[in-house]
Amino acid sequence: MPDPAFQDFYPESVAQCYGCGRLNERGLRIRTHWEGDESVTRFRPRPEHMAIPGFVYGGLIASLVDCHGTGTAAAAMYRLEGRPMDSLPAFRFVTASLHVDYLRPTPIDAEMEIRGRVKTIQGRRVVIEATVSSGGILTARGEVVAAQMPERFSGGS
Amino acid sequence: MPDPAFQDFYPESVAQCYGCGRLNERGLRIRTHWEGDESVTRFRPRPEHMAIPGFVYGGLIASLVDCHGTGTAAAAMYRLEGRPMDSLPAFRFVTASLHVDYLRPTPIDAEMEIRGRVKTIQGRRVVIEATVSSGGILTARGEVVAAQMPERFSGGS
Repeated sequence: MPDPAFQDFYPESVAQCYGCGRLNERGLRIRTHWEGDESVTRFRPRPEHMAIPGFVYGGLIASLVDCHGTGTAAAAMYRLEGRPMDSLPAFRFVTASLHVDYLRPTPIDAEMEIRGRVKTIQGRRVVIEATVSSGGILTARGEVVAAQMPERFSGGS
Repeated sequence: MPDPAFQDFYPESVAQCYGCGRLNERGLRIRTHWEGDESVTRFRPRPEHMAIPGFVYGGLIASLVDCHGTGTAAAAMYRLEGRPMDSLPAFRFVTASLHVDYLRPTPIDAEMEIRGRVKTIQGRRVVIEATVSSGGILTARGEVVAAQMPERFSGGS
């Protein structure tokens, strides 16, 4: 069994997201782990995720950065509080803003790697910086401003 | 027959995009038209496009804004040159950067409307501002910096 990912700890009520919900059978089901101070998601694009033949479409990259960012924000808050991700209350974040700079085309026939780093934590807002690379080559940079989800939605408190 | 959309004029070689390619059978296949000086895309989310039950995930919104933006950039260049979209050389744009501010949750059970407006055209770069609304309520704002695709990819010249 691989180590559990951040997304494995999302309460069932918020584990349906197309990008990161483990319960969404049609979704991307990304899985994110810490590697030291960086969070890492590895994702293999599907053939239909193309922009032009050979390269992934920008919306996939934006989707991965987005869900990678909100997952990293949650994990960072547990770390800050020094408690495991299966403890309550559960943290779950939504996106306040998303920015992606596309630096070069991202190949569709290789695994993508998204790496995140916490830039700031202020109250209920966490800013995550992310890089996207393929075969060791940087193809995009992103930033996610994540906001803690109101408790009436997150069902975890 | 509805009026042809911007995307109906993309050369076949660049009509495979998951977001906007008319030839991608699994994709979103958005369709965009002018309404005066604004470009408009209307899109009905699929059930699996959820973030939390009842609302669409952020990556869908980013994907729609992205492809709406590149489509609008192409259409704007034809307008600037005063020629129809089926004339050559074909314009096709890729995304240099994408920004989305999520203002409130977007319902999943209603049609979304993305409206775009050209902010600037400078050489091969076009900046598009976009709004996303549902049921007449603004839910997100976006900006796309679109760059004209190199001719070796666009196959339209």
